[in-house]
Amino acid sequence: MASKIRIIAVGKVKERYIIEGISEYLKRLKPFVKVDVIELKDGGLKKEAEKIANHLSSSTFVLDERGKQFSSLEFADMIKKIEGEITFVIGGADGIDESIKQKSKTLSLSKMTFLHEMTRLILLEQIYRSYMINSNRSYHK
Amino acid sequence: MASKIRIIAVGKVKERYIIEGISEYLKRLKPFVKVDVIELKDGGLKKEAEKIANHLSSSTFVLDERGKQFSSLEFADMIKKIEGEITFVIGGADGIDESIKQKSKTLSLSKMTFLHEMTRLILLEQIYRSYMINSNRSYHK
Repeated sequence: MASKIRIIAVGKVKERYIIEGISEYLKRLKPFVKVDVIELKDGGLKKEAEKIANHLSSSTFVLDERGKQFSSLEFADMIKKIEGEITFVIGGADGIDESIKQKSKTLSLSKMTFLHEMTRLILLEQIYRSYMINSNRSYHK
Repeated sequence: MASKIRIIAVGKVKERYIIEGISEYLKRLKPFVKVDVIELKDGGLKKEAEKIANHLSSSTFVLDERGKQFSSLEFADMIKKIEGEITFVIGGADGIDESIKQKSKTLSLSKMTFLHEMTRLILLEQIYRSYMINSNRSYHK
């Protein structure tokens, strides 16, 4: 089971309701796994890529709507099988530099383009759901 | 272009941050299209189906992760081409009765299972995004 999860995200979340939702899931995940959210300033793809490159781990997934799709069960199973750290990279409004994509696997939450701030919240909810699935806890609310 | 959008959703949204996000998008959509959100009490698939059946229109989409996926551009195009009302149905924790599925088209936001309260917010954001795309407005934030 992953021992640490890191989310690298470009750009600041401004909407108060998204900030609140993110805090809620970070709080809920605390008993299960250490999750770090690293927020990087936006400033052009190349500059962003340099900063992102400092934080990659051996299991890095770039979020990309044209990437690989998982069901929630498949995603939970994937998280269960990875030892060590998992890193998820969420780009800004302009996407992500090819140099990062080449070193990473991809994860598509949807064929649709989501607001990238909201993507953070949706990803955290799926990570929490994975830990609920993997520890056989019910999670309906 | 759709003249009215109706979202029929089973179950009450309890999380304050999701309620806030939903209000935000309903407010933003106001200048573009009339959107009604009809919240139905959960109470078993058959009972829910009876109530849902009262609200269906000729263009009804049931949200289902195994349904048809659209990119945001394809979704915007679909909304542009439909005249009259569009209805979206979001089931509760137990899903949606087959009798409703048989009368409807499907829409999959993701292969993943999202928290159904959050599904409402994600759908509203996509509807707003569609109106931005269809009126050639930029929407990066």
